Amino acid sequence: MSTSITTEPDSQVVGIYQRMTALAAEHSAVNLSQGIPEPVYDAEWRAALAAEVCLAHFQYTPSAGTPGLRESVASLYTDGLPAPVITSGCTESLAAVLLGLADEGCDTVLWLEPFYSYYPGLARLAGMDTRSVPIDLTGTAPRLDMDRLAEELAPLGRRGVLLLNSPHNPTGLVLRRHEWAAVCELVDLHGFHLVIDDVYRDFRYDGPAAPYAALMETGRTTVAGGVSKSYAAAGLRLGWLLTPDRLARRAETAHMHLSNCAPDLLQRAAVRLLAEVDSMRLTHTAQSYRRKRDHLLAALTDSGFTASVPDGGHFVMAVPPADRPWGPEPAVDLLRNTGVCALPLDHFFTRPDAPWLRFSFGVSAGQVEEAAQRLRRARTARNA
Amino acid sequence: MSTSITTEPDSQVVGIYQRMTALAAEHSAVNLSQGIPEPVYDAEWRAALAAEVCLAHFQYTPSAGTPGLRESVASLYTDGLPAPVITSGCTESLAAVLLGLADEGCDTVLWLEPFYSYYPGLARLAGMDTRSVPIDLTGTAPRLDMDRLAEELAPLGRRGVLLLNSPHNPTGLVLRRHEWAAVCELVDLHGFHLVIDDVYRDFRYDGPAAPYAALMETGRTTVAGGVSKSYAAAGLRLGWLLTPDRLARRAETAHMHLSNCAPDLLQRAAVRLLAEVDSMRLTHTAQSYRRKRDHLLAALTDSGFTASVPDGGHFVMAVPPADRPWGPEPAVDLLRNTGVCALPLDHFFTRPDAPWLRFSFGVSAGQVEEAAQRLRRARTARNA
Repeated sequence: MSTSITTEPDSQVVGIYQRMTALAAEHSAVNLSQGIPEPVYDAEWRAALAAEVCLAHFQYTPSAGTPGLRESVASLYTDGLPAPVITSGCTESLAAVLLGLADEGCDTVLWLEPFYSYYPGLARLAGMDTRSVPIDLTGTAPRLDMDRLAEELAPLGRRGVLLLNSPHNPTGLVLRRHEWAAVCELVDLHGFHLVIDDVYRDFRYDGPAAPYAALMETGRTTVAGGVSKSYAAAGLRLGWLLTPDRLARRAETAHMHLSNCAPDLLQRAAVRLLAEVDSMRLTHTAQSYRRKRDHLLAALTDSGFTASVPDGGHFVMAVPPADRPWGPEPAVDLLRNTGVCALPLDHFFTRPDAPWLRFSFGVSAGQVEEAAQRLRRARTARNA
Repeated sequence: MSTSITTEPDSQVVGIYQRMTALAAEHSAVNLSQGIPEPVYDAEWRAALAAEVCLAHFQYTPSAGTPGLRESVASLYTDGLPAPVITSGCTESLAAVLLGLADEGCDTVLWLEPFYSYYPGLARLAGMDTRSVPIDLTGTAPRLDMDRLAEELAPLGRRGVLLLNSPHNPTGLVLRRHEWAAVCELVDLHGFHLVIDDVYRDFRYDGPAAPYAALMETGRTTVAGGVSKSYAAAGLRLGWLLTPDRLARRAETAHMHLSNCAPDLLQRAAVRLLAEVDSMRLTHTAQSYRRKRDHLLAALTDSGFTASVPDGGHFVMAVPPADRPWGPEPAVDLLRNTGVCALPLDHFFTRPDAPWLRFSFGVSAGQVEEAAQRLRRARTARNA
């Protein structure tokens, strides 16, 4: 076991976001390297915070969260699931539950590759070894090899943790009903613990929601979510965990040793937002994201990129056109040549098989349009 | 190395606060088991938050903190210290720096005993072994045995971390100038890293502030602080770290894998508070705390308790009078018999040598007065 999460590679992994965003600003590029959503709910957040500021207190709150927010979060999910534990963001949720699972004897975490670049650091924090199962990116859309997943999980047994992100960052993979059913069967068969990183749950363009009730019935499933994406508030650091009681107590203890609790004011405001932003509005937002996805996909394809079609999430993965040479840093070349900033995905792969870039459409429609125009202009200039 | 921070004992350690507070409510007791300060700055926090709510954004902030708050925090300390890294509370500051130090090869953390009950969990999170040097509680005030401290640190060398809390929770020990100078010499001599838990910095009734500049000159010192105590806002979860550059980058990386960043709104409001609550007001607050300390000390002594006089912090440690039998849980007996709720300190000791209880005077003057009356009434009833 190693707790190393602050060594040079990890520092680069988390530093790449800041580096690309700084480069984008320096070159006046359209920044698609990070999700900086259009401010869909800023007005609502401001109104909610203003309404609660005179009622909120500034002392410790219960580490599991205020009863109000726990109830609001519970109402987002199927009835009968475990009561949510509130955390300081979905990343802290994952850290807390992995620490709890390590104490229960889990020593290996398995995820799909490419993987969100924070996962390796979180595994090291919990002292776990890591494995990955590749997502097939050779077709028009990402595809999961369920047999390969089963093969990798079998030897881990109860020592294993499967960390599943659906919709998936960065591929946009959304598990199908038969795939979720197969995952449930694998949990029952092998006894590993399933952790679902559910943060993109409201951004599905094709494919079903996770079958929460069936997953929870395994007794070995945790759902981690937060307000970052669905309520466009990544900066408020409000997340949650739904997990069986025994593990919930462990995760809460870990949370108490980290940020301890979430501020009363933010939890109060979140109660208002979750009530105000109903499923109709979330569906409407998803529809607008789907249009932005289609727009960005068309521009990338027209510009000679090889793109993988995401069924969910905020990102398009694409490989730059092979008709011109790229330096060792294609994302930097692209930024300089087109004024569009994408995220290089080296840290999302054990060994990348191609110079994959990640383009976020979790930005305003105007930014997507500007990026599309720039990509097309650069292509025309190259062809001329 | 072990990452276990969610096992049964740790869960009890953090659960005792909630248990005593629940018992206090159930018995309508005066709750001195936790610091629930009089709301000295609630109005200021509300005004600051209301003023900033229309300007704040809800997306990620830089993980090291906003430039504004980093500058405000820097201004609290001597010139020329390293730039602060903002965290989600002083506990997360300690977690982040210990994780960074573990990656630099530190494997043992030493602290003074009794110790803040969260420290063992933090050490386990970082995979470090622990040692403690007892604070001498046999006199009227707590006393540090510097020779013993030097003896314990010598064999650790550069693998060691000394976690010093001054003013100290729970004893109220405040290091003297010659003691700070001796600690600096020990750092130079043995090469261990010094982490100062500085959260009670503004609550000194006797004794100097930490000599920040001299401590930082060792190149092996970290100062961890936060708004919890000085600005009576434990629930806002805003902390900071001042540490040499190399370690600051590691701590920031760890922080990015935990809560990631602090909310823009809270950082903006804190900039206002730190400007508004000047050192004059902090001194005035400390004076009011000193009066509350004296009042509580007198009542405890008059009621037959053996109390240790704290030179700083929010707590009086005391042993119940020996003229009556106490059950296995003296804090619960006391609560039932007097209506005053203190915190049992079993989890603050490796092996407690007496049934020490911790009484907070970080509450309103009215609550201290009510507790004092109840203690005296119970004593009179017993003597009658």
